[in-house]
Amino acid sequence: MKDKLSIVKIGGNVIEDEKALDVFLTAFSKVEGLKILVHGGGKLATQLATKLGIASKLIDGRRITDKDTVDIITMVYGGLVNKKIVAQLQAKKINAIGLSGADGNSIQAHKRPIKDIDYGFVGDIDGVNSELLKNLLSINLTPIFCAITHDSNGQLLNTNADTIASEIAIAMASVFETTLYYCFEKKGVLRDINDDQSVVKHINTAAYETLLSEGIIADGMLPKLHNCFHALQNDVAKVCLGDVTMLDKNTELFTTLTL
Amino acid sequence: MKDKLSIVKIGGNVIEDEKALDVFLTAFSKVEGLKILVHGGGKLATQLATKLGIASKLIDGRRITDKDTVDIITMVYGGLVNKKIVAQLQAKKINAIGLSGADGNSIQAHKRPIKDIDYGFVGDIDGVNSELLKNLLSINLTPIFCAITHDSNGQLLNTNADTIASEIAIAMASVFETTLYYCFEKKGVLRDINDDQSVVKHINTAAYETLLSEGIIADGMLPKLHNCFHALQNDVAKVCLGDVTMLDKNTELFTTLTL
Repeated sequence: MKDKLSIVKIGGNVIEDEKALDVFLTAFSKVEGLKILVHGGGKLATQLATKLGIASKLIDGRRITDKDTVDIITMVYGGLVNKKIVAQLQAKKINAIGLSGADGNSIQAHKRPIKDIDYGFVGDIDGVNSELLKNLLSINLTPIFCAITHDSNGQLLNTNADTIASEIAIAMASVFETTLYYCFEKKGVLRDINDDQSVVKHINTAAYETLLSEGIIADGMLPKLHNCFHALQNDVAKVCLGDVTMLDKNTELFTTLTL
Repeated sequence: MKDKLSIVKIGGNVIEDEKALDVFLTAFSKVEGLKILVHGGGKLATQLATKLGIASKLIDGRRITDKDTVDIITMVYGGLVNKKIVAQLQAKKINAIGLSGADGNSIQAHKRPIKDIDYGFVGDIDGVNSELLKNLLSINLTPIFCAITHDSNGQLLNTNADTIASEIAIAMASVFETTLYYCFEKKGVLRDINDDQSVVKHINTAAYETLLSEGIIADGMLPKLHNCFHALQNDVAKVCLGDVTMLDKNTELFTTLTL
């Protein structure tokens, strides 16, 4: 039987709020067995950019990561947020180790090719160094990933944290029974977006198709759920979506996805 | 016979200059055997603080690390500088992994007690996790330390990079034949500060006493040399001081310190 591994991704709203972050990290510290955390940086990077007078560049509503922006992301995600999380987990007796994709060559990526839009220094993932992660987990370390990868030629790349989480889960699935947790501000996939209690508790492939056709999975949930099923189709055992109480196991009100 | 381990500390002047940093990292990548790098962040943290309108607080000429400053140091040293160095070393085929003292609980420290001056969030080192470093080195990783430690209660602490380098060297000395390299802008200890060629090539304990009494070791060199001899007195095999050419072994013009 494979050992269990939990990969938890936290959203930006949690990171921006000191109290919410502490509640989350306490819950994360109590997750049993081997675990990996993936975080973005929320609006903190935009806030720092604004303070420094660096304009956020958007094309068709999509953020462009220019040279200044990748530096800011490296400072905020790779420095401030990552090290604070690591230090706070150490205080909770979790032997956390912060990583970008460059550290230990843990996540290799390439700069997204220019088609219609040049997204700048944004990474599309080529591979995850599962050997390194296995080694780190085997000496009782808990990897904490910021949403940064590298191109193996010295360039750091801003990379979607949801995708990092699912690619890590997929890479580890051959060795571990892997569960992927997306922890965000909602209680899961909601049948009625205005009703927090209307959580769809279980979604399999057939239900997914139905929810898509009904338009219940829409907007920001589309890429998120796409990521989830991509992971499931690549040997990840289970994907869960919900708020922090999902980790506590103090609630059954969250969404579980299986094939 | 013990394996050899090189611990290299680079100064701020190298970090601020993109070309000089590349030359240094090329030289570092060629250092044979196991190795660890320690870096500070030079003036980049001060520059960011100035841009953000955060005044540098000095008491009696000593920098005070308040809450805003420790955040800036975490962004610049722990994020920007550390991750750039790691990515650039990866491009040079060195499997670098960036660490603060919080990562893997690698360096434990406590906030410096207030005597005459409250230095703020400045760390005095209590211990180095040599077991972790041995493990990382054994899987072919090259640890890259920024000058940040933690107090095990969730607080990050700004810590002198020279001291981090010597404490790591001391902690590893029981397992490895450890050489400590301080790489800076001078060619070593100079007999005449205006003559770059006047390097004192070898200093032992007796010569150290003489150079101190002659006033040749003065100012910023006093704590640096104190650190060096502290390391030697605690089983570090050799300490070398010089510029980047010392690592290349393309010069004999650097200072070697032994007991």
